Amino acid sequence: MSETIRFDLPQTDIPTQWYNIQADLPRPLPPVLHPGTHQPVGPDDLAPLFPMALIGQEVSQDRWIDIPDEVREIYKLWRPTPLLRARRLEKALDTPAHIYYKYEGVSPSGSHKLNTATAQAYYNKQEGINGLTTETGAGQWGTALSQACNFFDMECIVYMVKISYQQKPYRRAIMQTFGASVTASPSDTTDAGKAILAKDPDSTGSLGIAISEAVEVAAKSGGKYKYALGSVLNHVLMHQTVIGLESLKQMEIAGEYPDVVVGPTGGGSNFAGITLPFLHKNLTEGKITRLLGVEPAACPSLTRGKYAYDFGDTAGMTPLVKMYTLGHDFVPPPLHAGGLRYHGMASIICEMWDQELMEMNAISQMETFSAAITFAKTEGIVPAPEAAHGIAGAIREALAAKEAGEERVILFNLCGHGHFDMSAYDAYLGGELSDYEYPQEQIDKAIESLPQIG
Amino acid sequence: MSETIRFDLPQTDIPTQWYNIQADLPRPLPPVLHPGTHQPVGPDDLAPLFPMALIGQEVSQDRWIDIPDEVREIYKLWRPTPLLRARRLEKALDTPAHIYYKYEGVSPSGSHKLNTATAQAYYNKQEGINGLTTETGAGQWGTALSQACNFFDMECIVYMVKISYQQKPYRRAIMQTFGASVTASPSDTTDAGKAILAKDPDSTGSLGIAISEAVEVAAKSGGKYKYALGSVLNHVLMHQTVIGLESLKQMEIAGEYPDVVVGPTGGGSNFAGITLPFLHKNLTEGKITRLLGVEPAACPSLTRGKYAYDFGDTAGMTPLVKMYTLGHDFVPPPLHAGGLRYHGMASIICEMWDQELMEMNAISQMETFSAAITFAKTEGIVPAPEAAHGIAGAIREALAAKEAGEERVILFNLCGHGHFDMSAYDAYLGGELSDYEYPQEQIDKAIESLPQIG
Repeated sequence: MSETIRFDLPQTDIPTQWYNIQADLPRPLPPVLHPGTHQPVGPDDLAPLFPMALIGQEVSQDRWIDIPDEVREIYKLWRPTPLLRARRLEKALDTPAHIYYKYEGVSPSGSHKLNTATAQAYYNKQEGINGLTTETGAGQWGTALSQACNFFDMECIVYMVKISYQQKPYRRAIMQTFGASVTASPSDTTDAGKAILAKDPDSTGSLGIAISEAVEVAAKSGGKYKYALGSVLNHVLMHQTVIGLESLKQMEIAGEYPDVVVGPTGGGSNFAGITLPFLHKNLTEGKITRLLGVEPAACPSLTRGKYAYDFGDTAGMTPLVKMYTLGHDFVPPPLHAGGLRYHGMASIICEMWDQELMEMNAISQMETFSAAITFAKTEGIVPAPEAAHGIAGAIREALAAKEAGEERVILFNLCGHGHFDMSAYDAYLGGELSDYEYPQEQIDKAIESLPQIG
Repeated sequence: MSETIRFDLPQTDIPTQWYNIQADLPRPLPPVLHPGTHQPVGPDDLAPLFPMALIGQEVSQDRWIDIPDEVREIYKLWRPTPLLRARRLEKALDTPAHIYYKYEGVSPSGSHKLNTATAQAYYNKQEGINGLTTETGAGQWGTALSQACNFFDMECIVYMVKISYQQKPYRRAIMQTFGASVTASPSDTTDAGKAILAKDPDSTGSLGIAISEAVEVAAKSGGKYKYALGSVLNHVLMHQTVIGLESLKQMEIAGEYPDVVVGPTGGGSNFAGITLPFLHKNLTEGKITRLLGVEPAACPSLTRGKYAYDFGDTAGMTPLVKMYTLGHDFVPPPLHAGGLRYHGMASIICEMWDQELMEMNAISQMETFSAAITFAKTEGIVPAPEAAHGIAGAIREALAAKEAGEERVILFNLCGHGHFDMSAYDAYLGGELSDYEYPQEQIDKAIESLPQIG
């Protein structure tokens, strides 16, 4: 047998601290503003929804933040995750590049989301919170939070976009297996849901509506419940840095250092998880690894959005965040890559992009699925459609290396498997999918609706 | 962090040889008989369906058989699989027992089946065969063979029981993702299928019918295609011994040796995979590890069947095999644990049972699902319903250790995840499942139909 292609770490190498990029960003993050006063929000504004420990992490400037033992105990159920060299993919592409991937799909929830869900459940439990509310669309985040709440003996109340609730009964079932209460949104359990149903009894829901319902339940619970978000926020991205921190050690075992690190960008947590520890090396040790984000061409927040203050949600209820946005009422076309449909992007990623610390590709759905099939056939794993964006980006890089005749080292984050997304593959293989280029005038119009600040 | 709970092996420790129990069984396996002549079958009888290399392995008395490098190269995509200590399950059960599990669900196909599928595809490819035909019910085996054929650039022709084809579109989709041709059985592509459809155009199919179709296509292909079976046969069980061989090394790293090894028994390959290397130690090194098989109470081949010659299939077309059988026309009730519904059992397992080298539990469906939920909530992994039988057996052992106040070491094989079986969990959580005890008179009647030999 020629050689090892998997680079394992012992569990003693599970990181003991998360890495906080805020300590190293050349220019600090812009403040988050109150939607009414347009003044920077303070801890008190966020306290109804989040525990103080997470509010503290959201604004912390400390470079390293200790991971509680109780969180690492749960991480041990699947971490460290494997890092593999995709030898068979390299061969199929006939590229001199060395392609490595970090595989987060081995987590019980099937994606990287459990890294932050575990931490969020823990800190809420510490502050005496009984349970967490959240929304879920494709279901990755709802599954992760259901599991995390179960591990810490907390209630989990999930509002699931009605169309997903109906079309993905297995996603609902796995959340219920872990004891979560799952409600199709819009529902008659909240004022927000009732208002939507009054207007449109047949509404199939949206992530924006589900967020409103979940937030309402937490806000009106008198402190019994708080709300949890699966991406975008600074503390969420920080929790994901365990991915990159492990990868640094595993690449060392492999005896290489990446020339480029690739990850999909939806809300930003997956990309941040793998790249921030490498950005740390770039900023503090003079490394020059390229960091490449990949977003769907059909929802191109970074590549075609505007850097401006906007609401985080569709309804315009959240604080105002400065971000590359397509406008908060931007409605992406019905892509199958459910997780990458957010109109904006995490503040940290936006600053990385604005400060030219990263690069971006916008890749079409058809190229993405084609990359997914190539990967499945060579490496065996059927990726989640979100994860397939990272594969497509890595394949582009590998082909560029071939073109240049250079033995470049590529690392990408395979953030989850596609076992619950086979209907999307079915549609692709059945010729039912196509590409969609969003017309510029529609993007311009959506951006016009941005709130006027200052 | 208190301690490591996962015991990893480097890829250099992927076994280089399979273990063949036939070299060590105190009493040799009874011969397989020709269905017409009742004389022992020879290689020529099997050659239309299997390549000579596998026919050789089927009867080999060599203790160790080299694993080809090409097979180990594919194994590297997921092997060695992890072995974990189920600390959180132990705590939930409040048992002094140490519970370990070997997790085969990390394979690309999601179960142990890929271990033999890879080997079978390789040997067929070596002998110039273009493709493999097979049947699948629940879909685990069809998925594994689809992937294996893809890895060796071979066609894969799957006959999928029609009711599963309709109810499990995602299983069909994953096989198609790997390039397999999947046909709902009964179909009009074979004489066997046409005959069934002529009698009953609305037939929803059965594993027996699907086998007949797959065998017919291979037999009539003039050597272009051969047929592949996912369990029962000696060579299939042997390929699975990589599971137990790795476990031996991993238990050594954990610093313990199991008092009991537990595995579900359907056709026998999962149980054989984890236990045979431990049986080898029992037989040759004086170890006294108990080996515990678990079968569904609703399909109790070993615990309530008769040890006699019977057909391997429902239609009575295959050679006659001496096995514990419920009669080849035994129809198990519509259990959800699809993989454990076989009327007979692998010859090797039957001899182990008859020679008192193992123990058996028959466990009801409700106890099995209850064990599955307990495991998911403590260890995070949602097991396949088949795999849950092993968990239920391990939990019984752990509670017995608690009763006895003894720190026993338990190892079980978690042969696959349940991501494609969530409808069964949905039914369980929705209160739609119940237990079923097969009436003795029906078993007696089914056994009466056994062929009269000698």
